[in-house]
Amino acid sequence: MKRVVGSPGTWSGMALRLSQCVFAAASVFSMVSGFGYSNYSAFFYMNLALILQIMWSLGLACKDIFALRNKKDLHTPDNLLIIVMVDWVVAVFMFSGACASASLTIFFMWDVHFCETYSKLACRQFALSVVLAFITWLLQAASSFSGFWLLVSFF
Amino acid sequence: MKRVVGSPGTWSGMALRLSQCVFAAASVFSMVSGFGYSNYSAFFYMNLALILQIMWSLGLACKDIFALRNKKDLHTPDNLLIIVMVDWVVAVFMFSGACASASLTIFFMWDVHFCETYSKLACRQFALSVVLAFITWLLQAASSFSGFWLLVSFF
Repeated sequence: MKRVVGSPGTWSGMALRLSQCVFAAASVFSMVSGFGYSNYSAFFYMNLALILQIMWSLGLACKDIFALRNKKDLHTPDNLLIIVMVDWVVAVFMFSGACASASLTIFFMWDVHFCETYSKLACRQFALSVVLAFITWLLQAASSFSGFWLLVSFF
Repeated sequence: MKRVVGSPGTWSGMALRLSQCVFAAASVFSMVSGFGYSNYSAFFYMNLALILQIMWSLGLACKDIFALRNKKDLHTPDNLLIIVMVDWVVAVFMFSGACASASLTIFFMWDVHFCETYSKLACRQFALSVVLAFITWLLQAASSFSGFWLLVSFF
């Protein structure tokens, strides 16, 4: 089994998956604790993407732990192909959600100064949530690339 | 020279680049003809990304035409590596711009119904511009993948 950093079935891969879960969960928490987030499609969409991310990363983290404990090799081409494809789809979802929410947060904060006018609007929480979502996306992109690299090396 | 569809120095590659230019230019035109687009960061950012896209695609289209006329081979690893890297960066810019603008347009149209309240706001033009930007991104993604595929086949 090749040891590509961050690929499925390695310690670094498991650490990446777990940190994706942590950052995504923190982002969801920061978003839902803000007043009125559900009125805005972009925030709602980002939350959906984050929940998808948490489910996927948690599932793969469990799989990694299982493989590490039982010394199972996850690097079969079929297995890798599915993981890499879903990884890319999740990464695209995460990125689009983060961009959409970032755009709306910037609109509130700097374009129309809603945050100053309506102090109830939880702009800080929204901004924090967007930053955490971008970090989650970066971690997800790292996982995707490492899996993809391994897959390419099979051909 | 390998003939990968859509790769640099092929007829399909040139057609892809030219269609990217056309769609990006149409998107910019649709956006700037709408009233008040420059007040919103997301629309401004998407326009920047579109202009970058036009410059890059036009440059590569010219290079393709030159290579096709003079039967020059553009498929050297160094040349391809630079093209693929810039292609990916441009694709990420385009996608983030399109998502940001889509989010703001959806906010105007469905979340707060600004389009009905302020009939001056050119929501239809914004929506058209976003759709064209997404098509541009899809074409750019096709170019990126085809170049990347060719690059991978060198290793």
